[in-house]
Amino acid sequence: MRAFRAAVEAHDMDAVEALLADDVVFSSPVVFKPYRGKAVTAAILRAVERVFEDFRYERVIGEADGRDHALLFAARVDDREISGCDFLHLDASGRIAELTVMVRPLSGAQALQAAMAAQFERIAEEAQERQDARAASAD
Amino acid sequence: MRAFRAAVEAHDMDAVEALLADDVVFSSPVVFKPYRGKAVTAAILRAVERVFEDFRYERVIGEADGRDHALLFAARVDDREISGCDFLHLDASGRIAELTVMVRPLSGAQALQAAMAAQFERIAEEAQERQDARAASAD
Repeated sequence: MRAFRAAVEAHDMDAVEALLADDVVFSSPVVFKPYRGKAVTAAILRAVERVFEDFRYERVIGEADGRDHALLFAARVDDREISGCDFLHLDASGRIAELTVMVRPLSGAQALQAAMAAQFERIAEEAQERQDARAASAD
Repeated sequence: MRAFRAAVEAHDMDAVEALLADDVVFSSPVVFKPYRGKAVTAAILRAVERVFEDFRYERVIGEADGRDHALLFAARVDDREISGCDFLHLDASGRIAELTVMVRPLSGAQALQAAMAAQFERIAEEAQERQDARAASAD
């Protein structure tokens, strides 16, 4: 959890990606259906990092050595203030097996949806590049 | 935190209200500006209890004797599935000083907004009744 927080705060998205389990399940604040796998989750998190401004963690809930953590944050998307939370559920090896994000208020969630929609093509490209690279390295 | 969870699960809204600090700050999933005070917060929570169907807590994060807790829940509003979280911050006497709720996905937050808007008059009436009762008892 500390490693995830430190990586996000350093805007080090490679380090964030390295903390994800291969079969991570990512539940977004906007879409009901979860995304599955490291490639698409990493691509989405890179887009989120581009979209959020003035991002800062404000409170952490969960035991330091536990498997579940809630990291409350504040940020802006365009001119909308957003409060949100990253929920991390770690697997036995300490990788992030489930990542769920919620945000409030409704105006902030709508601004986030619009900003993420504008990132759609780049997300799809980056997810594909990651999957191709992984398939190549598995050959 | 256990008392709050038990009260919510028993649909005992008087017990929920008794756990709130007089100057509780309630941040809703829909509206940016927080609500302040026990009367309006209790009235809103009663409306939420009428609006959510099949409500169940699914995960609790936070140390049992700590001041901060995250209670993840699932529910339905009309035909929309909602995931959400109650964040409790307790004061030194164990009362709930801050209660923040977030929900996902966007379609669920929108359904919740519509359902809560339909409760507006009853919320305003119940909040007023509580304030009047408190003013009378303080005379």
